Amino acid sequence: MVCGLTDETGRTLRMAKVATEAQRGSEDVIERLGKAVNGLIAEASVTPEAVGIGIPGFVDHVNGVSVLAVNLGWKNVPITSELSKHLGGLPVYLNHDVRMYVYGEAVAGAGQGYKHVFGLTVGTGLAAAMVNEGRLYYGSGGRAGEFGHIPVPGLEYHCNCGMVGCLETAVSATGIARQAREAVQRGESTILAERFAGDNLQQLTAADVSRAYDEGDPAAIAVMERTGTLLGRGLAAAIPLFSPEAIVIGGGGSLAGERLFAPMRKEIERSTLSFYLDDLVIKPAERIEDAGIVGSALYAKQRLNGTDMV
Amino acid sequence: MVCGLTDETGRTLRMAKVATEAQRGSEDVIERLGKAVNGLIAEASVTPEAVGIGIPGFVDHVNGVSVLAVNLGWKNVPITSELSKHLGGLPVYLNHDVRMYVYGEAVAGAGQGYKHVFGLTVGTGLAAAMVNEGRLYYGSGGRAGEFGHIPVPGLEYHCNCGMVGCLETAVSATGIARQAREAVQRGESTILAERFAGDNLQQLTAADVSRAYDEGDPAAIAVMERTGTLLGRGLAAAIPLFSPEAIVIGGGGSLAGERLFAPMRKEIERSTLSFYLDDLVIKPAERIEDAGIVGSALYAKQRLNGTDMV
Repeated sequence: MVCGLTDETGRTLRMAKVATEAQRGSEDVIERLGKAVNGLIAEASVTPEAVGIGIPGFVDHVNGVSVLAVNLGWKNVPITSELSKHLGGLPVYLNHDVRMYVYGEAVAGAGQGYKHVFGLTVGTGLAAAMVNEGRLYYGSGGRAGEFGHIPVPGLEYHCNCGMVGCLETAVSATGIARQAREAVQRGESTILAERFAGDNLQQLTAADVSRAYDEGDPAAIAVMERTGTLLGRGLAAAIPLFSPEAIVIGGGGSLAGERLFAPMRKEIERSTLSFYLDDLVIKPAERIEDAGIVGSALYAKQRLNGTDMV
Repeated sequence: MVCGLTDETGRTLRMAKVATEAQRGSEDVIERLGKAVNGLIAEASVTPEAVGIGIPGFVDHVNGVSVLAVNLGWKNVPITSELSKHLGGLPVYLNHDVRMYVYGEAVAGAGQGYKHVFGLTVGTGLAAAMVNEGRLYYGSGGRAGEFGHIPVPGLEYHCNCGMVGCLETAVSATGIARQAREAVQRGESTILAERFAGDNLQQLTAADVSRAYDEGDPAAIAVMERTGTLLGRGLAAAIPLFSPEAIVIGGGGSLAGERLFAPMRKEIERSTLSFYLDDLVIKPAERIEDAGIVGSALYAKQRLNGTDMV
């Protein structure tokens, strides 16, 4: 868990990290989160006006409830009211973590100055959020943005969600590692086979694929090309639907950078009507460390001022 | 061109049709449109407060300009100011035709009562528009909703837009007819081959395919199944991105009804996360005749009242 204190313009003043240790239960997690926030407040000798949080899973942002967070093992946790108790009654506002990350980038990062931002995070999975006319887009049940679960014909990987061929099974840090492992298992000639022999194969990560790519390894290059092309194909569906002004790409998997972005751009140019591309900006995220913090803080500010349509 | 007079609740009181005859030029078209509207006003002995118009192509709805309407041969036509001159200075507001159709359905048709509506028209082409939290979604340049130009891997038809494999090359009235014609040309055993022999093949329409389908023609059934499945696949991409509460399907091609909707639903159920489907409503449009009129009229009312974010 990453916490931060920001000023009202979205400048991060302090940050702190706390291990989640989800297995200790939501009460324990929230209590430690409260301690970390109180620590930041004490160090800075300021009293914040509100607290914003972003968490994964299904979120009832209106009532501040974590409806379902599979990885945390949470179901219907009233996180805002619980956390507020540890913070002397400070108002707390909750939203989805990717939405907060993208909001941070849209308002104070790579998407600054654009009215229509489509932001995505390439991490363990693949998710997106949209800011339209400066406002967060929620859709029914706040479930908009599951970019990672667009079906890709021809992709045969089983997804954690229960379906087959979801975009994130290939386009994610996990997906990059999986494809490289398969190349090794197929017996392709790759330096990854030497580096991750036998049981070590499970240790292979997306960062290792990037490293092999830079050394000219054909299998690693093929994995990045395929992943970037699939990402481009997904965006070629999202662009005509949303008509974003800017696409911002963040998350750990995006650290692959041009290895991924070059084939992605090529596929977008091939598969998207040119009048979308003339003034479309595609940029890496700029606030890798604190986009989620800034987004959560500015969201809390909006809720406090009653200017966010929830 | 279809014109109508509505009351402020979106009830259509009168309608009139005028041939477009685009080749006579925009001034002539607008003049005849003005005459038709004045005719409706005279018949009803009322003075409307405003006029709304929906037209195809790229529309600058803020300034009321038809930026580009390829089928009409229009470029930068200031349609609202020109039409207003013929209507004694009545305020005129312009928007995109599909957006007005979907807005009419969302506010006073099949989408009534839903906050998040994804509406599409299956016609000569395939287009969509979204209403989110009761407001029209525009995206950058007002270009959101080009559902028909999502690329479909494996689809090889050349699209009018210059790309290959756009969804609308198969999923449209034109696309249904094209696929049936190809079946005939491939020499498949179909009653359509007898009915549309030789040069008559170009006369084959989507309605003919529906008729052959009802007679149990295997080729016609295969075309509808494929088209419905592709439509479902496109929606399986749109649903996780937008999370609509209701999907409303209209346009001439949608008259194929269950022939198209049954395989579409099957594909959506196969390719969409179940938590989207639990409370998702998919309905045919209800105001086939006047959805565009009602949408345009209610949009004009909103603009007049300053309640539409343009």
